[in-house]
Amino acid sequence: MRRNKKDRQKKLKDIIEVNPFITDEDLSNQLSVSIQTIRLDRLELSIPELRERIKNVATQQLEDVKSLRVDEIIGEVIDIQLNDSAISIFDVKQEHVFSRNGIARGHHLFAQANSLAVAVINDDLALTAKSNLVFLKPAKLGDRIVAKAKIIEDEPETRRKTVEVNGFVENEHIFEGTFEMYHRSQQ
Amino acid sequence: MRRNKKDRQKKLKDIIEVNPFITDEDLSNQLSVSIQTIRLDRLELSIPELRERIKNVATQQLEDVKSLRVDEIIGEVIDIQLNDSAISIFDVKQEHVFSRNGIARGHHLFAQANSLAVAVINDDLALTAKSNLVFLKPAKLGDRIVAKAKIIEDEPETRRKTVEVNGFVENEHIFEGTFEMYHRSQQ
Repeated sequence: MRRNKKDRQKKLKDIIEVNPFITDEDLSNQLSVSIQTIRLDRLELSIPELRERIKNVATQQLEDVKSLRVDEIIGEVIDIQLNDSAISIFDVKQEHVFSRNGIARGHHLFAQANSLAVAVINDDLALTAKSNLVFLKPAKLGDRIVAKAKIIEDEPETRRKTVEVNGFVENEHIFEGTFEMYHRSQQ
Repeated sequence: MRRNKKDRQKKLKDIIEVNPFITDEDLSNQLSVSIQTIRLDRLELSIPELRERIKNVATQQLEDVKSLRVDEIIGEVIDIQLNDSAISIFDVKQEHVFSRNGIARGHHLFAQANSLAVAVINDDLALTAKSNLVFLKPAKLGDRIVAKAKIIEDEPETRRKTVEVNGFVENEHIFEGTFEMYHRSQQ
């Protein structure tokens, strides 16, 4: 059932407030209007697009990151829950690939995964003690790599946490890694 | 017993021809003269210093590297025996360390080790399938990291070679790594 514009825009605002990560597509389904209508509504209400909303949310969370300067994180953090999990995206550009075959070089993938593992540790000193990376499929020039980090083990007595990081390109699993992180404070 | 200058310079030339990596100190011991005398002798004979000699030798070997462009190797290769072993040095500069503590970031060490592991593979396609890195001690701003790579396992039927890479700062062991490399041709 269609609503009038004012009702619909109020509803749209409420939905986005509860779930800032909702896509225009899902909004269009929920409100039974076209994606174009959703875009126009957002424009009129000055609600930025999903990507920008994600950034805004992540920026607030990023202010609490202690273990490194935010601009030292390789890739763009789109979500971070300190001491728990984090997500970043990394766009593979010309400078990240082997000139001979256009395949992304391992150390850039390592850098995305490792810096996310550092960022998720809620401590002012977090050092990588061990790393294990399995490269399942090559990433290529133009790929957008989504890395998802999650703390899977916590040993407060030795001040070590194990962070699992998985990399995906369009839902294809391209790398899996574990990082054993040492941190300063016993928590 | 001292020799006269002509004899000594001939001997010095012969020694360096056999072992281009000998230091001035070892030369001074072998020829029982001061390091200053060795330097003057080298100057008169137009024999460059060790660092330059190493570079010349490595440059010739580097021409045969197939798996990546030489300028894609992170660090400076000072010795490489394709399909066997390689050595590179990497100077830790401001842009390689965490701003908060001056400790070298893991992905630069990974980059030095991994690109050396790629370079040593004598094939036009060499991809990293797995990596294991243990960071034993942090490297710091100003450190010179010497990485030594060695192929320790070779499985021609699966086209995989395992390369061990160890990192040192002034003979202190700072990281140990293994890289399982996939290569194109069965050799």
